[in-house]
Amino acid sequence: MIDSHSIPSYSEIISAHEVIKPYAHFTPVLTSQKVNERAGTQVFFKCENFQKVGAFKFRGACNAVLTLPDSDSSKGVATHSSGNHAQALALAAKICGIKAYVVMPENAPKVKIEAVRDYGAEITFCESSLEARESTLAEVVEKSGATIIHPYNDARIISGQGTAALEFLEQQPDLDVILVPVGGGGLLSGTAISAKSLKPDIEVIAAEPEEADDAYQSFRQGKLIPAYSTNTIADGLRTSLGELPFKIIKNKVDDIVTVDEASIVSAMRFIWERMKMIIEPSCAVPVAALFNNKERFINKKVGIIITGGNVDLDNLPW
Amino acid sequence: MIDSHSIPSYSEIISAHEVIKPYAHFTPVLTSQKVNERAGTQVFFKCENFQKVGAFKFRGACNAVLTLPDSDSSKGVATHSSGNHAQALALAAKICGIKAYVVMPENAPKVKIEAVRDYGAEITFCESSLEARESTLAEVVEKSGATIIHPYNDARIISGQGTAALEFLEQQPDLDVILVPVGGGGLLSGTAISAKSLKPDIEVIAAEPEEADDAYQSFRQGKLIPAYSTNTIADGLRTSLGELPFKIIKNKVDDIVTVDEASIVSAMRFIWERMKMIIEPSCAVPVAALFNNKERFINKKVGIIITGGNVDLDNLPW
Repeated sequence: MIDSHSIPSYSEIISAHEVIKPYAHFTPVLTSQKVNERAGTQVFFKCENFQKVGAFKFRGACNAVLTLPDSDSSKGVATHSSGNHAQALALAAKICGIKAYVVMPENAPKVKIEAVRDYGAEITFCESSLEARESTLAEVVEKSGATIIHPYNDARIISGQGTAALEFLEQQPDLDVILVPVGGGGLLSGTAISAKSLKPDIEVIAAEPEEADDAYQSFRQGKLIPAYSTNTIADGLRTSLGELPFKIIKNKVDDIVTVDEASIVSAMRFIWERMKMIIEPSCAVPVAALFNNKERFINKKVGIIITGGNVDLDNLPW
Repeated sequence: MIDSHSIPSYSEIISAHEVIKPYAHFTPVLTSQKVNERAGTQVFFKCENFQKVGAFKFRGACNAVLTLPDSDSSKGVATHSSGNHAQALALAAKICGIKAYVVMPENAPKVKIEAVRDYGAEITFCESSLEARESTLAEVVEKSGATIIHPYNDARIISGQGTAALEFLEQQPDLDVILVPVGGGGLLSGTAISAKSLKPDIEVIAAEPEEADDAYQSFRQGKLIPAYSTNTIADGLRTSLGELPFKIIKNKVDDIVTVDEASIVSAMRFIWERMKMIIEPSCAVPVAALFNNKERFINKKVGIIITGGNVDLDNLPW
């Protein structure tokens, strides 16, 4: 059994890949001449917006749920989330035939509530504060005996997220850099373990909104600094960096770059128009980091993990 | 040299594939559990919205331009179009290092004009009538000596478009049906030649808007009926069926199904939301045909060619 609080090894990521393979999409890698021209180098996109539930989050949730011991899984899994992790956990539970309990703030967008319900999860609503979410989740768990699956502060989740980079480097072995966004740090830490194990000289660089730069600050200062303000359009990256991911990130990640809000929206629209795919604002963060720092990536093959495509089509930022 | 006025053979499609391979994307086949649930069967999407210029049209244009004899190509290629064919021809010409002359109506959307110009084509503007387009094109050709490349009434174009189904059946050999939209008929006729040659018992079914049902009428009556009204959101399908494609279609296509406008918009939004990809209204026509005729496709593996992703993000139909 995996200890969910210790740093996962590369072999745990390989195991996670075997676990999730029958359920997860092996997502394509796409390229665009127009992007290459604007970036001034060759860019490859690992399209996790085409993953189940529209986000890489399914990888981690699927691995966490499928590796639970039977004694635990029979009582179900639980989380508080209004984002992609809730959908991912709900679908993973559905696949296993177990219950998922999701605590959501009353003011969560209707589309997200519907999506979670659609996957068969039992939703408990609460006020929108973190306190209310945590106390409500504690009550749900007390009653049900369900196992809490944290969205990123968990080795099984990190191992699952690391499988995206594993596939990416199988599909495009000659990458010199992998660029990923950082929010809680699950994807970034998993990517760093995979990428550095497969290819020790690859650079792993994270991108973060200036308006939610706690990972940047933590990385620079060598200690975990919580997010103070998170006034960014990149809703998937508003969360604070987790403790376990940070332990990995501070050793394995090469750099963290921040980008302004206007660059995020502009990069997002560029990808929609030129690559004909729907990406959430969070995915546009590494794209913007590339476009704003061209000189840094000249003559390097850059891989970007497109993290998800869940946006409200009635509320586009243009 | 290929006779551009005669029905292309399967071997010409194979040759076209060799010709365009170094330049065209080998586009992915994507699936979606949500689509399968709604359709009540297994559905596979060949994603030509991720093709160069954002549409399958690049295949035909690339084949036509690359197979021109040097004596012709040195004088360039020409077309009148405000759609994807213009961009496709412009890019194909750029790749060959020859000139592309594109006649466009003055009132063509700015984004389309910019896109064609971006690929280096020389644009001549004219009034928006078909007459003005044709006479302006004649003048341009008279002056330049350029070769006119028709968007669908041309064997080299049909052969190029047929390469999409060739790849599709390589990627997903167990398809029982291929569903494609029909406008001028280039894609449909090329698909029918490829698919029936590779797999004689496959069904090839076309989908067309009720509001521009000239292919449906022509197919039913066994003679070419021009489009009278073309009041459909599926702008790529407003054009009348071409003579050469019709010769192929009446022998090789199994059926043509029509769909109403509301179903097109609803299917388009469903694909955007569930598959996170940008498809133009034309692509939603076969999807709507599937959703509206579920009983017909039960227990059949259905392949749909997603034809393009060029839409104006500031003018979405919702």
